[in-house]
Amino acid sequence: MSRRLIGFDPGSRLCGWGVVDAEGRKIRHVDNGVIVLPAKKPLTERIAILVPKVRELIAIYRPHRAAAEQIIFVRNVRAAVALAQVRGALVAACSLSDLAVDEYGPTEVKKAITGRGRAAKEQVAEMVMRLLNLPEVPQEDAADALAVALAGSLLADAPSQGPRVASGRGSGKGRKAWEAYVNERKE
Amino acid sequence: MSRRLIGFDPGSRLCGWGVVDAEGRKIRHVDNGVIVLPAKKPLTERIAILVPKVRELIAIYRPHRAAAEQIIFVRNVRAAVALAQVRGALVAACSLSDLAVDEYGPTEVKKAITGRGRAAKEQVAEMVMRLLNLPEVPQEDAADALAVALAGSLLADAPSQGPRVASGRGSGKGRKAWEAYVNERKE
Repeated sequence: MSRRLIGFDPGSRLCGWGVVDAEGRKIRHVDNGVIVLPAKKPLTERIAILVPKVRELIAIYRPHRAAAEQIIFVRNVRAAVALAQVRGALVAACSLSDLAVDEYGPTEVKKAITGRGRAAKEQVAEMVMRLLNLPEVPQEDAADALAVALAGSLLADAPSQGPRVASGRGSGKGRKAWEAYVNERKE
Repeated sequence: MSRRLIGFDPGSRLCGWGVVDAEGRKIRHVDNGVIVLPAKKPLTERIAILVPKVRELIAIYRPHRAAAEQIIFVRNVRAAVALAQVRGALVAACSLSDLAVDEYGPTEVKKAITGRGRAAKEQVAEMVMRLLNLPEVPQEDAADALAVALAGSLLADAPSQGPRVASGRGSGKGRKAWEAYVNERKE
């Protein structure tokens, strides 16, 4: 049975989203995009724009789970507060559609996608493109959203040699088993 | 015509709320309370508990406006992020019920209630009790929520000598006009 995941990369100006279907070991791209929030409007109004759009996406794609990255890196408290409010609104919108939001740390997402917790942003986007057989690298926020959806799918079904137990630097035995696993998925 | 306001004091564990009716110069207490969010559950689950309760309150009391304090003081980024997520969820819940959330700074709220932007928390709660003819000071978070609802009502209908133009320390002419104004309301 196919499991559908929607990933979100919520920002205070752009909110990326990406939908994937996972069936057994195969993961298929469904759609991705970005919700644009007018930068000049107050945050409360931006939230009022975001929430119905998120609910619309859920109504269209009917995902089984939602996934979003934990908030870790922040420029300053002001930016963190804005970002966190958008994220809270996103969780609220999902919960009203009876959709739970799984949280993944940025390292966890990177590791799940590339096998390395410290992979560069571009490497993750590149790997997302390859794993999902996309013709090109998606817009940055959409790529991040697909990455977290993909990570959610991979981690839910990963073997024990997978990213959760791979050694920190992503080298050695764990890394090799992981690469084999990822390659197998791409076939 | 009576205008109904709901004030919120969202916290990551307790979310105070308070409803007031403002008719001309009279402000009447309607109800207040606290939504308890289980401290041990992850924030996403707490948001999933908060959102339907907020929508229930809106359905019961049918306010015309909602009001909440801006996030200013925060212990640390972690606390700020948790608080902001709850606040974002609150704004989302209100927006889904077609209710706009007005934001007021803490100083603005204190000044509106007591005439002094630097009033102590207890003074604000005491004044909320007096202005709304409550038999006792409400629970802390509910009192803060009533304070912001009350501030929203007062500021929407305040005379030019009112808090928006009173001098910083709340002394002198502006202060006296404000006291007269507040006393008049209490009659």
